[in-house]
Amino acid sequence: MPQQPIAYSRMQREHYLRTLNDFLRIPSISTLPEAEPDIQRAAHWLAGAMAGIGLEQVAVMPTAGYPVVYGEWLGAGPQAPTLLYYGHYDVQPVDPVDEWLSPPFEPTVRNNQLFCRGASDDKGQVYLVLAAVDSYLRTTGRLPINLKIVVEGEEEISSPNLAAWVEQHKALLACDAVLICDSGILAEDMPLINHGTRGMAYMQVDVQGPATDLHSGGFGGAVDNPFNVLVRILAQLQDGATRRVLIPGFYDRVLPPDALERRLLAQLPVSDQMMQALTGAPAVAGEAGYTTAERLSVRPTLDIHGMPGGFTGEGKKTVLPAKAAAKVSMRLVPDQDPAEIAALFERHVRSLAPATVKVTVRTLGLARWSLVDLNDPAIQAAAQAYQAGFGAAPLFMRGGGTLPIVAEFQDILGAPVVMMGFGLPDDNAHAPNEKLSLNLFYRGIETVIHYMALLPAAMQKASVAAGTGE
Amino acid sequence: MPQQPIAYSRMQREHYLRTLNDFLRIPSISTLPEAEPDIQRAAHWLAGAMAGIGLEQVAVMPTAGYPVVYGEWLGAGPQAPTLLYYGHYDVQPVDPVDEWLSPPFEPTVRNNQLFCRGASDDKGQVYLVLAAVDSYLRTTGRLPINLKIVVEGEEEISSPNLAAWVEQHKALLACDAVLICDSGILAEDMPLINHGTRGMAYMQVDVQGPATDLHSGGFGGAVDNPFNVLVRILAQLQDGATRRVLIPGFYDRVLPPDALERRLLAQLPVSDQMMQALTGAPAVAGEAGYTTAERLSVRPTLDIHGMPGGFTGEGKKTVLPAKAAAKVSMRLVPDQDPAEIAALFERHVRSLAPATVKVTVRTLGLARWSLVDLNDPAIQAAAQAYQAGFGAAPLFMRGGGTLPIVAEFQDILGAPVVMMGFGLPDDNAHAPNEKLSLNLFYRGIETVIHYMALLPAAMQKASVAAGTGE
Repeated sequence: MPQQPIAYSRMQREHYLRTLNDFLRIPSISTLPEAEPDIQRAAHWLAGAMAGIGLEQVAVMPTAGYPVVYGEWLGAGPQAPTLLYYGHYDVQPVDPVDEWLSPPFEPTVRNNQLFCRGASDDKGQVYLVLAAVDSYLRTTGRLPINLKIVVEGEEEISSPNLAAWVEQHKALLACDAVLICDSGILAEDMPLINHGTRGMAYMQVDVQGPATDLHSGGFGGAVDNPFNVLVRILAQLQDGATRRVLIPGFYDRVLPPDALERRLLAQLPVSDQMMQALTGAPAVAGEAGYTTAERLSVRPTLDIHGMPGGFTGEGKKTVLPAKAAAKVSMRLVPDQDPAEIAALFERHVRSLAPATVKVTVRTLGLARWSLVDLNDPAIQAAAQAYQAGFGAAPLFMRGGGTLPIVAEFQDILGAPVVMMGFGLPDDNAHAPNEKLSLNLFYRGIETVIHYMALLPAAMQKASVAAGTGE
Repeated sequence: MPQQPIAYSRMQREHYLRTLNDFLRIPSISTLPEAEPDIQRAAHWLAGAMAGIGLEQVAVMPTAGYPVVYGEWLGAGPQAPTLLYYGHYDVQPVDPVDEWLSPPFEPTVRNNQLFCRGASDDKGQVYLVLAAVDSYLRTTGRLPINLKIVVEGEEEISSPNLAAWVEQHKALLACDAVLICDSGILAEDMPLINHGTRGMAYMQVDVQGPATDLHSGGFGGAVDNPFNVLVRILAQLQDGATRRVLIPGFYDRVLPPDALERRLLAQLPVSDQMMQALTGAPAVAGEAGYTTAERLSVRPTLDIHGMPGGFTGEGKKTVLPAKAAAKVSMRLVPDQDPAEIAALFERHVRSLAPATVKVTVRTLGLARWSLVDLNDPAIQAAAQAYQAGFGAAPLFMRGGGTLPIVAEFQDILGAPVVMMGFGLPDDNAHAPNEKLSLNLFYRGIETVIHYMALLPAAMQKASVAAGTGE
């Protein structure tokens, strides 16, 4: 039991919160080209913070896109396990900005919740790891493990350059396990380990009708309206009764979960009532024949995110728009192939397009799903750390979100990825009023301290077990 | 043949164009609340111009909304017919502003076309009437008719206050015929009289799902997405194969055109090829069983103008939006009742809404259709004026656009409404790069001069004919 670091971290809570707030104030929105200076500023702020707590070899390392911030502490020696921690310092856009109750980049505490874009996803979770390391190094002068830290700036744009960077720095990043804190638990007293993530194919459909916008009085009825056409196409992507995706071949490679996972899924305290209360939706719905827990984890989805074009202001304008577009993403599960799904989507949309318009389908992003072995000792140590930090055993559920790097870390580094998160379902990640529970921020620091303390024994036990088992 | 005014108007072309440009530079967009000062500025500019050419009793008269500009010349005496001219000084919004080749409120001549918001709809057509009056008064010192001029500032927001104003000033506005120049002809050498207009019901559908925007990874698949729901609803408003509106009862009151109108429709040189060339659409389509000319005039429509909500920026954002909306208008024909159609629309949309979302249907505007007797002497005089001004007999076709005031003038003042326009189908009214043909601006001035000259004989002949006939 790492008593000194835990006690120290409790004394430093105010300092850690203040420092996190400095990090949160930097509007590092990776999807906006004009935010580049802020992205750079966030990277260098982070490097400063990492050097300040005693990490070594701290560097802001270039990629083909935004930089990766790296730092390490390798003083535990070759017998100790090496953990690679991964997080991201970029954040989502803030629109619709008028729905924020406090300015999106001004950290504000209400009801013991810290509101700010990035509070939960992922700056708050990155910084709690740094706080855990700080608490250890300040009290014992060392860590029980070797630690490498990698924080990237392109996660919210699907990490287009990270895999190549990891491949290129394979030797530098060699490790026994990868830790990611970028996910959520079910409630403050219900820790959760995500043992997988969904993949994604993000598409844009552009429909061009007339060459320019027309007056709907002068031309309406005699020229196809791109929005009228587009809603007909989109309505044929998903069945209204069963919520099944209607793209031919979409489900062909979807694998059902195995017996162990089905048992764990059935144990999850996730209900339609809970979803309704959590989201405020009048009623919940999803793919027929599956539970809410299954719909959120082992089943693929199709969501329309927005439909640019035409007149969207207040009041009325009688335009027959030249163009209509739709942004559509599909979350994917094992064994769906993102590129194949994008091609099936494009083929289906094209097959539905009438000759009266020109339909273009673009792939804006592809990302792989991931799946981690529940029995891996690095995962088991995470379960023990949650037990120690929360006084409760964690539940297990695949994450519904997308972290392309999980599969890439597993492939390139050959190490298991542990997703131990401290967000909550109502954190509004990717939405207005994103927040982080301060309870979970502090509990997260302690849980990571426990994880570093527990990892050597768990990994050694595993080595011994493997040794005697052969 | 009013030779002096015609000759004078030809000498003054440069002056008239320069003066029109001053009018066009005022961005009087009635749909934008922030444009109010410009609306007021446009009204006072116009009053100054009307007083300057010798109109009397010129006044900027208040309404419950934006003011009406009034002026008159009643020197022709009680035996002469009285013509009420109606136009509007407000204009449409300019978005998407980046598609304009020159700034929307900077009049620019390219290829003998005058580009500016309002050039064709309707400032250019208002000003050509003033130029015709000016040319008459400057040369002969009088007009052959009594003239009253009414120019309003709320036409582009469906004239919410004009009918009440006309009703209130019924005595002031008493007349034998109403002239409106706010429509188009088919080509530079194909004048056209619109003997009717379509009505309108403009609706907004708002779909609220979850209480706030959600992360589509964390919630996608288990909570209905308002856009997914909305496209399913919208797709059920119009049949994809026949382009028939599927709202129950929508066509119940639609009357077929009579034999004379069917003959005139068949004579119109309007073809699918022409529509395709004019609009740049890859192919044209419309309600099955009707010609393009019929689809544009005697048949009702349904158009989606835009779908606000969600993420519409560049790149990708994985939001499961709390809200999705659609702006939808229907152009209506005799004997459809706009309020009844709005109610049928609302009932149908509600019937299609699942319990997972809250659907709100709002009526943003209602407007009546109109129909004018083709045999009215005021219409016949317009045909003669076009023949004199263009050297070509006009075609007859109901206008596809909406001018609610037409039916209201006919009802309140008991006078026939003559729609004699000088726009072209490719004028981009309500779209980027609106323009007016300078040829038609000048030909319009001369045609209005001819109309004023021809009206006394036509109306008298009619009175005599009616007198002998009884």
